[in-house]
Amino acid sequence: MTKIKAALSSLIRPLVEPHLPDWVEPIWFMSNEEAMAAAPMAEIGWFDMYDKAEMMKVISAATSLKWLNSIYAGVDGMPLEQLKAQGTIVTNGAGINAITIAEYVVMGMLNMAKDYRAVIRAQERREWLLDSPGKRELFGSKALLIGYGAIGKLIDERLSAFNVEVTKVRRTPAPDTLLPDEWRGKLGEFDWVILAVPATPETDNMIGAAELSQMKKDAILINIARGSVVDQDALISALQSKSIGGAFLDVTTPEPLPADHILWTLDNAHISMHLSGRAQDKMFMRSAQRFIENLGRYRGKEPLQPQVNLDLGY
Amino acid sequence: MTKIKAALSSLIRPLVEPHLPDWVEPIWFMSNEEAMAAAPMAEIGWFDMYDKAEMMKVISAATSLKWLNSIYAGVDGMPLEQLKAQGTIVTNGAGINAITIAEYVVMGMLNMAKDYRAVIRAQERREWLLDSPGKRELFGSKALLIGYGAIGKLIDERLSAFNVEVTKVRRTPAPDTLLPDEWRGKLGEFDWVILAVPATPETDNMIGAAELSQMKKDAILINIARGSVVDQDALISALQSKSIGGAFLDVTTPEPLPADHILWTLDNAHISMHLSGRAQDKMFMRSAQRFIENLGRYRGKEPLQPQVNLDLGY
Repeated sequence: MTKIKAALSSLIRPLVEPHLPDWVEPIWFMSNEEAMAAAPMAEIGWFDMYDKAEMMKVISAATSLKWLNSIYAGVDGMPLEQLKAQGTIVTNGAGINAITIAEYVVMGMLNMAKDYRAVIRAQERREWLLDSPGKRELFGSKALLIGYGAIGKLIDERLSAFNVEVTKVRRTPAPDTLLPDEWRGKLGEFDWVILAVPATPETDNMIGAAELSQMKKDAILINIARGSVVDQDALISALQSKSIGGAFLDVTTPEPLPADHILWTLDNAHISMHLSGRAQDKMFMRSAQRFIENLGRYRGKEPLQPQVNLDLGY
Repeated sequence: MTKIKAALSSLIRPLVEPHLPDWVEPIWFMSNEEAMAAAPMAEIGWFDMYDKAEMMKVISAATSLKWLNSIYAGVDGMPLEQLKAQGTIVTNGAGINAITIAEYVVMGMLNMAKDYRAVIRAQERREWLLDSPGKRELFGSKALLIGYGAIGKLIDERLSAFNVEVTKVRRTPAPDTLLPDEWRGKLGEFDWVILAVPATPETDNMIGAAELSQMKKDAILINIARGSVVDQDALISALQSKSIGGAFLDVTTPEPLPADHILWTLDNAHISMHLSGRAQDKMFMRSAQRFIENLGRYRGKEPLQPQVNLDLGY
């Protein structure tokens, strides 16, 4: 049997090796030097590295690569033009973090509804509050969920169990759904506006001064997409003037946010430092499992999932 | 027409008075003294007071009472023997707070899973964390839900949407259910132990040193029942020695917790000051509406809802 060479990081070896099919000949690399040596031989590669410049060099050397895998959703450290020219298929980590991000969104909404941050502060002062600083219920409230990919679907399922009335924004008409050109006129109806879209030219500054001014005075904006989806200066103005109720921001512009940035000072904003996807310990396990499943598809000449569109970059 | 005297707190007057039927003669009281004066005359009474000893005195003086109403679910501050001897029917607030308490439980679990308190503290330091201080997911975890009343049912619905595997403890055999004498031997299987039982002699100190020692090392105890359901000294020892992962305590012994109490100092405990039921703005409205509906039943000699079983104490 001709074996197919796969260059794989030793970091994921414990999770991947026990499940490797016999037609795969793994080349486990420990260092960047070993990765550089393995790259030109590999038909399959998984080259995630903390140093993006190093990773770029290694992937550029992988000239026989037919399939490149990554644990991450973003592919900005990859030579996309070269991969496209080589006909390399790229699979990424889209959806790997969806569960914990959806959990984080509900956590953020509940924290803001009950103003639990004020309870934590009172606990630190050892002060027994006699009434709840926040008195909102998710029950019966209305959410606009912009973006209905892997994360959006999980948010929808969870919020529905809280009897939140969820209106989705997506390209495909469906019940409880608004099309991308329909939601702006209805922004004033929602208690929650949740951004779960990818960062693309189309979603850049999607929420600006005009959109914020149409939101309810007590509405909360939740952003787990990208900082670029929101006009941050307009958001800061809205939060300062309390023309909206608050914002739960997992993402900001820039990241990390400098210590002297005004966003830190706004008491109606939560900043969760792009941690939502990291609040889990199963990322490597899920990624390894997905890779093994894709090996089966690769052998059977079925389409690998999920594939990055190298023209769109996601 | 002979009118029936009802002793009612002025606090709920704005919500109740506009809907009172003409056969009710309200005696609105403002102070404990006025309540004491009104109590002996009243056939119907609604005597909720923050000071449970005062409330006990007032209700004990209400010797002609046929119907006692309360906004609260717990009746542990009432002279149950006397009420039973007098034939007084007691209606309570069971379910009035259920929605917000269920929301609070999920919030507490998520906050502990992600250690969101540490994120809030970092935000106050304006420090951009690079990794999540908490890395647990609700997804796929196992919860033991002890108590399956109005609150327990809503907790179950919500946790199920997070793919938490919920095992209920109740008297009635059912799927995914353990009977009251079955759960102790299985405590080691659960990531979450949620106390949603009424405070009765049977549930007093239900969770003590023996139960805590059987819990998983990273298991979290959630108490939204009553402080008395847990042997608090044993819990403090377990939290100090980290033999369990943590506790989310909406209730403590005593309440309020004194500022010098050691519970405040434990970083693996959250103390939410019995606020879970108050984190809503519809409690008085819902309770007033229920009282008015029960007045109609009282007049029509239909059973009032929901009635407390004075033998069981809930």
